[in-house]
Amino acid sequence: MSNKPIAAVLAIHGGAGTLLRSKTTAAKEAEYLAALERILLAGQAQLSAGAPALDVVVEAVRQLEECELFNAGRGAVYTAAATHELDASVMDGSNLQAGAVAGSSRTRNPVLAARAVLLHSEHLMFTGAAADAFAASHGLEQVAPEWFGTELRLTQLRAAQAGQRGARLDHDVETQSSGPIDDARKLGTVGAVALDAAGHLAAATSTGGMTNKQVGRVGDSPIVGAGCYANDTTVAVSCTGTGEAFMRICAAYDVSAQMAYLGLPLQAAVDSVIQHKLAAVGGSGGLIAVAANGDVSLSFNTEGMYRGYARVGEAPVMAIYGDVS
Amino acid sequence: MSNKPIAAVLAIHGGAGTLLRSKTTAAKEAEYLAALERILLAGQAQLSAGAPALDVVVEAVRQLEECELFNAGRGAVYTAAATHELDASVMDGSNLQAGAVAGSSRTRNPVLAARAVLLHSEHLMFTGAAADAFAASHGLEQVAPEWFGTELRLTQLRAAQAGQRGARLDHDVETQSSGPIDDARKLGTVGAVALDAAGHLAAATSTGGMTNKQVGRVGDSPIVGAGCYANDTTVAVSCTGTGEAFMRICAAYDVSAQMAYLGLPLQAAVDSVIQHKLAAVGGSGGLIAVAANGDVSLSFNTEGMYRGYARVGEAPVMAIYGDVS
Repeated sequence: MSNKPIAAVLAIHGGAGTLLRSKTTAAKEAEYLAALERILLAGQAQLSAGAPALDVVVEAVRQLEECELFNAGRGAVYTAAATHELDASVMDGSNLQAGAVAGSSRTRNPVLAARAVLLHSEHLMFTGAAADAFAASHGLEQVAPEWFGTELRLTQLRAAQAGQRGARLDHDVETQSSGPIDDARKLGTVGAVALDAAGHLAAATSTGGMTNKQVGRVGDSPIVGAGCYANDTTVAVSCTGTGEAFMRICAAYDVSAQMAYLGLPLQAAVDSVIQHKLAAVGGSGGLIAVAANGDVSLSFNTEGMYRGYARVGEAPVMAIYGDVS
Repeated sequence: MSNKPIAAVLAIHGGAGTLLRSKTTAAKEAEYLAALERILLAGQAQLSAGAPALDVVVEAVRQLEECELFNAGRGAVYTAAATHELDASVMDGSNLQAGAVAGSSRTRNPVLAARAVLLHSEHLMFTGAAADAFAASHGLEQVAPEWFGTELRLTQLRAAQAGQRGARLDHDVETQSSGPIDDARKLGTVGAVALDAAGHLAAATSTGGMTNKQVGRVGDSPIVGAGCYANDTTVAVSCTGTGEAFMRICAAYDVSAQMAYLGLPLQAAVDSVIQHKLAAVGGSGGLIAVAANGDVSLSFNTEGMYRGYARVGEAPVMAIYGDVS
């Protein structure tokens, strides 16, 4: 390693998945890339001003939740009961403190609820109405459950349910309004990882789950060690994909464990988890990670992942397809 | 290692914690040891007959749930709202399949619900009413929530709540009816790990949580990698203690990771997790583990842990205090 000072860096993702077979429009692609860039630039400015990694990842995920393009917060997918159940987690690599909520349906920004648990509770994880009650008791905005819904997501639910009943999916409806990655088969989550100027790492993950998921299902997003992990001595990680597979292999923590115990560099540890271990249990998806030494990895075993990173002092880099890492 | 064939083995725990300062009775101690022995003998007989590790750990935990002495199933502690919320998980080391429920309140045996999720769902974890609905849909017995309660646990809740309000605890009530480990400060969980004759590992964990816990809180017991983990190539682990600390350090999976990546023998990996990493985040409790080579570890950083193990062909070993491992 050189003696060059390590620049603070933020990486974000907006879900991984299969590319649409029918063409998406250039305008749609540009819309996704612009959203990623806007959020990266905001985080870069925070890091530049000396903000802690925890604040930066929480704000980046809050903005991803607010953006209807991504499956978290507003624009989250529907459950089989046409409701929303939102999961989120945050972890502070400087002290291994973490907070998580699962099955939230009233708190406007689940990632803020997760941070409130981290900051204000002796507990680490709350589920359902208790998660929202805790968030409300700490002043977080509550909304009607309908607030999270959009016409597009409802159309996707109806299409998924029609598909279950054997009906033909109306792909035209999908592709006209969907993004470059097939929403109907997208493994939707958003997340952020950051290294700040003080050398601290943090990670945050948030999701609406899977379209048409059974009510009460919890995936990897709110699980420390599965969908989210941060430790200043190794790495910060946020995952997206088939959650159950990430849970079975403790994906986020395993990146850290392979770096700590095997001495692997970041990309080798990530490749082991995403290209080998995840595949071995039939999982698909990806993760973003930033190591204590400033290395960044944006990796997936799907056709695409909405992703990007921004180092302080450099132009942000955004991508959707498998062409650049 | 010798060429001696590895004997199948079952280990169980019934929670870790602080010993009562006032004397418990010899009769109470004997009651706990007898319960542990009865469950170990039943599991030993199953293993002897060639039963798979997964079946053996599920049955052992089911019996621990049925036993009022332990904080899981019947005899589970109360939440702050004087309700019960039960969590459980199971993992099959032969294929890394897992199942978990959190916040169950109707299914008589939460560990059976966790196994039903493992066997019958594409998902890994269900929470709340959805967990019970899933269990019921697979034929598992549902009970009135009151079924889990006992007079002793209700007394403990009232004592804890009186303590919060600054009132003096009535320790006499506690000690007359409680076991050797202080129920008021016991880190209650039950669990089992086993190695079967075919060389497969499995783990199961179940809990009623913490007395007077906030409704909706989820600890480590239903979290794969935190309170439960099994992998045929390394180890099966079940944890008990301050759940949040076990979640932050991914305790159960970390034992496996240190064995796999550092090549540590079982006890060295367990010591690293329980004596060092757990303590570093302010956690207390213990775990039971059986390695692929048949090694067993029953370790804790508290004053005691209800525990025992039984190898096929040998007499079961049970203990409560810190005198034997």
